[in-house]
Amino acid sequence: MKIGIIGASGYGGLELIRLLHEHPEVGQIDLFTSSEEGTIFSNKYPHLTDLYDQPLNEIDFDRLVTYDVIFASTPAGVTSKLFPPLLDRGPTLIDLSGDFRLKDLSDYEAWYKKAPAPIEAIEKSAYGLTEWNAKSIREAQLIANPGCYPTAALLSILPLLKERQIDVSHLVIDAKSGVSGAGNALSPMTHFSETNENLSIYKIHQHQHIPEIEQAMEIFGGMKSPITFTTHLTPMTRGIMTTTYAMLVDGITEVDLICNLRETYQHMPFVRVIEDIAKFGTKQVYGSNYCDLHVKVDERTNRATIVSVIDNLVKGAAGQAVQNMNVRFNFDEKAGLEQVPLFI
Amino acid sequence: MKIGIIGASGYGGLELIRLLHEHPEVGQIDLFTSSEEGTIFSNKYPHLTDLYDQPLNEIDFDRLVTYDVIFASTPAGVTSKLFPPLLDRGPTLIDLSGDFRLKDLSDYEAWYKKAPAPIEAIEKSAYGLTEWNAKSIREAQLIANPGCYPTAALLSILPLLKERQIDVSHLVIDAKSGVSGAGNALSPMTHFSETNENLSIYKIHQHQHIPEIEQAMEIFGGMKSPITFTTHLTPMTRGIMTTTYAMLVDGITEVDLICNLRETYQHMPFVRVIEDIAKFGTKQVYGSNYCDLHVKVDERTNRATIVSVIDNLVKGAAGQAVQNMNVRFNFDEKAGLEQVPLFI
Amino acid sequence: MKIGIIGASGYGGLELIRLLHEHPEVGQIDLFTSSEEGTIFSNKYPHLTDLYDQPLNEIDFDRLVTYDVIFASTPAGVTSKLFPPLLDRGPTLIDLSGDFRLKDLSDYEAWYKKAPAPIEAIEKSAYGLTEWNAKSIREAQLIANPGCYPTAALLSILPLLKERQIDVSHLVIDAKSGVSGAGNALSPMTHFSETNENLSIYKIHQHQHIPEIEQAMEIFGGMKSPITFTTHLTPMTRGIMTTTYAMLVDGITEVDLICNLRETYQHMPFVRVIEDIAKFGTKQVYGSNYCDLHVKVDERTNRATIVSVIDNLVKGAAGQAVQNMNVRFNFDEKAGLEQVPLFI
Amino acid sequence: MKIGIIGASGYGGLELIRLLHEHPEVGQIDLFTSSEEGTIFSNKYPHLTDLYDQPLNEIDFDRLVTYDVIFASTPAGVTSKLFPPLLDRGPTLIDLSGDFRLKDLSDYEAWYKKAPAPIEAIEKSAYGLTEWNAKSIREAQLIANPGCYPTAALLSILPLLKERQIDVSHLVIDAKSGVSGAGNALSPMTHFSETNENLSIYKIHQHQHIPEIEQAMEIFGGMKSPITFTTHLTPMTRGIMTTTYAMLVDGITEVDLICNLRETYQHMPFVRVIEDIAKFGTKQVYGSNYCDLHVKVDERTNRATIVSVIDNLVKGAAGQAVQNMNVRFNFDEKAGLEQVPLFI
Repeated sequence: MKIGIIGASGYGGLELIRLLHEHPEVGQIDLFTSSEEGTIFSNKYPHLTDLYDQPLNEIDFDRLVTYDVIFASTPAGVTSKLFPPLLDRGPTLIDLSGDFRLKDLSDYEAWYKKAPAPIEAIEKSAYGLTEWNAKSIREAQLIANPGCYPTAALLSILPLLKERQIDVSHLVIDAKSGVSGAGNALSPMTHFSETNENLSIYKIHQHQHIPEIEQAMEIFGGMKSPITFTTHLTPMTRGIMTTTYAMLVDGITEVDLICNLRETYQHMPFVRVIEDIAKFGTKQVYGSNYCDLHVKVDERTNRATIVSVIDNLVKGAAGQAVQNMNVRFNFDEKAGLEQVPLFI
Repeated sequence: MKIGIIGASGYGGLELIRLLHEHPEVGQIDLFTSSEEGTIFSNKYPHLTDLYDQPLNEIDFDRLVTYDVIFASTPAGVTSKLFPPLLDRGPTLIDLSGDFRLKDLSDYEAWYKKAPAPIEAIEKSAYGLTEWNAKSIREAQLIANPGCYPTAALLSILPLLKERQIDVSHLVIDAKSGVSGAGNALSPMTHFSETNENLSIYKIHQHQHIPEIEQAMEIFGGMKSPITFTTHLTPMTRGIMTTTYAMLVDGITEVDLICNLRETYQHMPFVRVIEDIAKFGTKQVYGSNYCDLHVKVDERTNRATIVSVIDNLVKGAAGQAVQNMNVRFNFDEKAGLEQVPLFI
Repeated sequence: MKIGIIGASGYGGLELIRLLHEHPEVGQIDLFTSSEEGTIFSNKYPHLTDLYDQPLNEIDFDRLVTYDVIFASTPAGVTSKLFPPLLDRGPTLIDLSGDFRLKDLSDYEAWYKKAPAPIEAIEKSAYGLTEWNAKSIREAQLIANPGCYPTAALLSILPLLKERQIDVSHLVIDAKSGVSGAGNALSPMTHFSETNENLSIYKIHQHQHIPEIEQAMEIFGGMKSPITFTTHLTPMTRGIMTTTYAMLVDGITEVDLICNLRETYQHMPFVRVIEDIAKFGTKQVYGSNYCDLHVKVDERTNRATIVSVIDNLVKGAAGQAVQNMNVRFNFDEKAGLEQVPLFI
Repeated sequence: MKIGIIGASGYGGLELIRLLHEHPEVGQIDLFTSSEEGTIFSNKYPHLTDLYDQPLNEIDFDRLVTYDVIFASTPAGVTSKLFPPLLDRGPTLIDLSGDFRLKDLSDYEAWYKKAPAPIEAIEKSAYGLTEWNAKSIREAQLIANPGCYPTAALLSILPLLKERQIDVSHLVIDAKSGVSGAGNALSPMTHFSETNENLSIYKIHQHQHIPEIEQAMEIFGGMKSPITFTTHLTPMTRGIMTTTYAMLVDGITEVDLICNLRETYQHMPFVRVIEDIAKFGTKQVYGSNYCDLHVKVDERTNRATIVSVIDNLVKGAAGQAVQNMNVRFNFDEKAGLEQVPLFI
């Protein structure tokens, strides 16, 4: 497999490099950039010395079509222009940005405040929530890799929605992320002295991942309803936790929920259901492609608290992108993704 | 004023010392302990060198009655035995533990799994949520200082409940705390290597602050309903944020909520209502007695997200205790509490 | 006292505001800026809501001369131009930048790579290492507040040099700082995701504080020799530690060093000599104006390890500036600086 | 290969599990414990759910002899008793503790304050500093894996000592470690609230790694002299940096040092010499087996500052142990150790 990565300098790109380096089916990896052509990559990122001492390449259409897979980890509004001409030209395209995730163009415009990708390209794309859309992914030329928050939230609630175990009309998703989700662009929001020892809340009700979650709830869970979704910035580098609050449908018990989750994911290698622990946290998946789930019913209020943790850069970005490549090419789904979490 | 502090070695005790040191009405401060009599306090805590070089004293009943105020910052189950004999003997008692907060003894037994304090002592105590109970605090011999989570949550939702602006029946409180809330007792939960870079969830639906919040909602907000309340441990030392999700009563707008909060607290020095900011976080109150509030309505779901931040050791513990002493003795409410937050 | 602060938006400025707010002799505080005139300061820094809701003022010469004290916390190269015209015009000038610290203009040019301040202004300035230069500070119109690293290092080694207890010719100073020392300017060096969980070394042998330390060693310690000085960035917000390695002069013992330090600082409120502890760290002075010292002799190598900790924003910047104002105006040296360290 | 791990619950053990899980030559891995027999390992460490759901085994001599390799990651004083009877019985023994590192029994007694291992066992052991002792490791039954600090320090200075480029008589090693080096034993030193935002110094001149470094300097560098060595605790989980200060031998230049380091390690996969960077830090080797080196000469003082970074749990413990197994069994030296550093 010959791989191209566009946007290699960003954190999604760095993480793709980390994972693909251990992938048994991957040979050549070339890195592309729109702004730093010629830079020796390991001079910019010394942790890659001896591993990626090659220069960054200019984005060149004729060259890009020669790759088996092209991953793009770019800001919103880039691949909507870059990818459509590459469709039907050979490479499988895996987009880590939000440009092809929303089927309704007006949603993209409303939440991203940008012009959407062409509808034909969006129609050819498959939403890359691997555990729920493998059949489409297997046949897609263009895979729209999910957002980090939607991945964590959806894996935890879709089984419960699909089986009508929870009431969709009162769904509250309280999401917390580490700072690496903001990428490597400098901003006061990611300035160490103002972020360290500071838990903050941002984009209340306004995060662009809201329509993505609602769309997937409808497509995969069969339930349509607006959600309340809020995002917090946690003073740590990696990790996302979503804490979802949902009213139980009458007669449903905690055991019902746990059994449903266990059955749904029993043959899926990267989703684990964890019971009976004192503390359940993001570090138990650090550096790995796992999504860990935990659910607890409050009998006083008939409400379930559904918790999900992922590493935002792995299952929430680059790891799921590699998993999607594996599914698309019929590789072992775990290829390149067998890293044990760094709990310590 | 002659002050005694029982449980000085704990973090609540240390913070009382920090704040009372700058209090203009405080003269002598003596420290009491049940287990480290004779220890020179600054040998145990070198940051207090030159400030508290005196030894810890044995807890002695005859001596305790000579103080104007006795603060206790001890684990649950200590002051329920220690404080009743001191009632009517002179000192004003300010308890930072949960032993006198719950009016219903069976609640204490159910949530704390311990024998409650005598009902007579509980009846003589005032719940020390200063902004909402000043009249009772002013006359109390025994003040039950609120828990850290209840302080943050209640200050943000009581005005909205009292004015019937939010629906009490679907209240979800997602609470996040820094690690100092767990005190100085060693445990895997507070072991640096397992807590750093780890956001975790614990005591889901089971935290002993739940009945305390529900009781205050009824007494001060006039609304009775079980809440869904969950606690997260954030990799930082100080700070609590509560994010509360509530359905709006018909016809209520975001402006209504903000005006209510502003009016409720307009003459109260420690509660600030903050609007229009990109990021709202715990560090804006670090080291200070402020409680900052922010509220945002989601018109898509008719739900309000109500955010509150405090320093768990100050407004959530020692600061509010000092504020209660000020109210009790008719000192300036801000005495000893004028520290500017350390945002950096 | 009427106080003006130039560069209020920087971290030095914020810390001046925090400390001066509690200063009993300070009345009006006005904030000046070269780039954000009119901005309501608490909109920029919400932690100052209710405390500093006034707008930032334009830097205006005619207005500046009306203040009793003007503090400047600006980048190198600003006060060298701004302050000379204000000399002999009324205000006492306290400069937190490096522009007036080096008596030899060629040193400034070589290490700061900028044009130096006029020699006449430098000659009128006093180096503001309070414990060592109080006499000059008391009479100065312009006080050159020391750098953060020099403050920590010099307070620990000057007594030993002055008494000829250590050999100046093999002095190695290994310095470690929290990230706030880099201020609020955005850079990859202070980007949370790349700084958190990362201890790094920077400006090896090249830090502009080197000539400042060497100059003070000569003036106050009577010993002239180049030092080896290296700086590390530690993943924390506040705090500096300097670990200095020095050969002992023949016959000198650990007790000699400790006694010298104790005697030197016995009547000085902000320098503490700490013995016999398992762990000695920056947090024991967090948020306070203390400098804590510890010394240990290695008999195997006849070398002393001399350790010093300060809060870089307090004793290393704003706190020492306030201390210098106190000395200059014959206030209590501790006025505005009685904050107890936040060890937790 | 059939592998046994004694002390699996500790951080060294956890890291062995993480690395060996990806090792192509490793089949069965069994975990042994002296105190938690029967515990399902993934119940204790949920991050290993699905990966290590087997119970911990009792330490049983007859069973241990059936393994190809036994790793022990136990406190000092355990393997000195446990390993000698296993010598000549089949398994290759790799000890991560200090029990077999010091050739001089009196050194062990003096620095570890415990009874040493039998001299016969020590004589049969090879010091496992892979890059410097591969020949002995290849033939050893018992490998004494080096300490974390010695690994970082020795890899950076041995080439310079061996080529007589630096003066051994004035060597100062200032070492800084993340908190995971203290393991999972609870102590105030590793209590989050007292360690976070706190850089501290401990065991000044008294660390048990001092004789280990001096012994290796003599054996591999041919230079004998006591060193000044001090250890700091940094508020991060993983990572060690050693900053070594050494006088240059006359005529030696920075280029000489760099060339020596480059040549020494040019065919060794895990030591990288990094030049010309703004910032050099521990995170560039996070989670990997790399040791990165950087050196800078100060012409003003004729002194070199030699910097070395490792991940204390990988190259400083489990990673080097796996590397030693690879060398011992003629596997690819990189087998199981190809993880790319997690710079983010």
